[in-house]
Amino acid sequence: MTDVLIDTDLAGAMAETAAAVDETLGRELPEPDGPAAQLYEAMRYGALGGGKRLRGFLVRTGARLAGADDGGALRVAAAIEMVHAYSLVHDDLPAMDDDDMRRGKPSCHVAFDEATAILAGDALLTRAFEVLADEETHPSPAIRIELVRALAEAAGGLGMVGGQMIDLSAQHEAVDFELIAVLERMKTGALIAFGCEAGAVLGDAPAALRAMLRAYGYDVGLAFQIVDDLLDVTGEEAVLGKKVGKDAAAGKATFVAALGVEGARREARSLVDRAVARLDGFGPDADALRGFGDYVLQRRS
Amino acid sequence: MTDVLIDTDLAGAMAETAAAVDETLGRELPEPDGPAAQLYEAMRYGALGGGKRLRGFLVRTGARLAGADDGGALRVAAAIEMVHAYSLVHDDLPAMDDDDMRRGKPSCHVAFDEATAILAGDALLTRAFEVLADEETHPSPAIRIELVRALAEAAGGLGMVGGQMIDLSAQHEAVDFELIAVLERMKTGALIAFGCEAGAVLGDAPAALRAMLRAYGYDVGLAFQIVDDLLDVTGEEAVLGKKVGKDAAAGKATFVAALGVEGARREARSLVDRAVARLDGFGPDADALRGFGDYVLQRRS
Repeated sequence: MTDVLIDTDLAGAMAETAAAVDETLGRELPEPDGPAAQLYEAMRYGALGGGKRLRGFLVRTGARLAGADDGGALRVAAAIEMVHAYSLVHDDLPAMDDDDMRRGKPSCHVAFDEATAILAGDALLTRAFEVLADEETHPSPAIRIELVRALAEAAGGLGMVGGQMIDLSAQHEAVDFELIAVLERMKTGALIAFGCEAGAVLGDAPAALRAMLRAYGYDVGLAFQIVDDLLDVTGEEAVLGKKVGKDAAAGKATFVAALGVEGARREARSLVDRAVARLDGFGPDADALRGFGDYVLQRRS
Repeated sequence: MTDVLIDTDLAGAMAETAAAVDETLGRELPEPDGPAAQLYEAMRYGALGGGKRLRGFLVRTGARLAGADDGGALRVAAAIEMVHAYSLVHDDLPAMDDDDMRRGKPSCHVAFDEATAILAGDALLTRAFEVLADEETHPSPAIRIELVRALAEAAGGLGMVGGQMIDLSAQHEAVDFELIAVLERMKTGALIAFGCEAGAVLGDAPAALRAMLRAYGYDVGLAFQIVDDLLDVTGEEAVLGKKVGKDAAAGKATFVAALGVEGARREARSLVDRAVARLDGFGPDADALRGFGDYVLQRRS
């Protein structure tokens, strides 16, 4: 498996989105000035530089499918990437997953200190909601508040944070595929699914399109996590930008532990097939989402 | 100074609000069931039981002045108390202020563990925005999104979290009154000011009333913090429900360190006088806010 298998148009579109999301993030995060400058530096350190912006790419692609404005989509993409970045900064803390490296550089608490990393995560999460609430994101308050509501639902105790809680409690315990699927759908799937459906919210699309994008996101998100678990076993540290073999060392509940390497590969393939089948009936506008399914299976980092 | 100096009507109204806010919090926080039950237990532990709900009282009182619906005010009160509770859970962590006791019981990370406390704080903050975004809070999306925007502004990097960052960096350094006032207006004042003005937002009140309530909140909030610093020097542990003398031991930048005990008392008095003078022209509906100023000066816990 090498990166050249990924469609060059898709790779170009993803790179272009990553640059545009980074630019929006740079503009929407506070400048590192004044007495709290260290906090703003840590927020920028945690959110900028190195992210692939996959969630942002899904927002933008979904928005195009729903006919939504691209400027608003980029702001929603930046907000969701702030939430993703905050979750990484907090998950890397010594009391949590205790990871020293992230995106090929020292984790936020290593580059700064633990207190600063906790606060930077808090401020990134808060800023995400502030960006969504701003009328620049969409002129309609009804659409903005629905984005806030859905992001909070995806990121909160019944979504991402709840999934991380289960993940921590599941360490060193025997777990089965069903529980891992529940926790990963909460921990990773909920935010990816929100990313996919956010474009439909922005475009005020029919409920059926929103539901389709959400379901696509849930399946692709779970496949993404299965591949993450596979890369922790089969990946290369230098390509990944983080340590490998950590899951097994920590006795973590992973799909590879539950299904084996081949079983996990089959499950990821089957989820992507189901996600892409949902796009039947949509024309070339959905090609990026079709290609994204292949990308998820073939990625090496 | 004893509690009997506080007007009994005010004390009754505050107790009634505290009970109503607790009931709303109990309903709006997830039940401790399922695989992430430990997270929900920690959220409830951090948010329920023991809080005086001063911010909630200000929301409700401001809402009454602005003619807003009380049911919506209670939901906003619960949201702001979730944010306050999350800030205490994170501030108490060993990497931050390292406090073992809070509201007369073990801090969240002592009762659970550090990872759970970090996640519980994250989930409380997220849930606050979700509660505001729900249409039960107010039928108008424009009002709900303005509440979300203003809460995020008050709680984020340019408000509460930024203030905590300055507070941590200011330890063991010579600081002056102006810098302490800046950090405390960010750390405590911004959220209290939002609590005061939130009622005006809910009631769709004229801009002048909103600005008055906000200014009242900023001054009362700063006075509140000065009294907090005084209580760390002059208060009783058993009444406060937390350790005293911690600020001086940590070399913290406090108003008492900058102004002395008598100077700090004068400053608090002067801020409350200014805040209460803003209420001139408002009738008996503003009596609770007038009384609250005295309460801030006379409180022992």
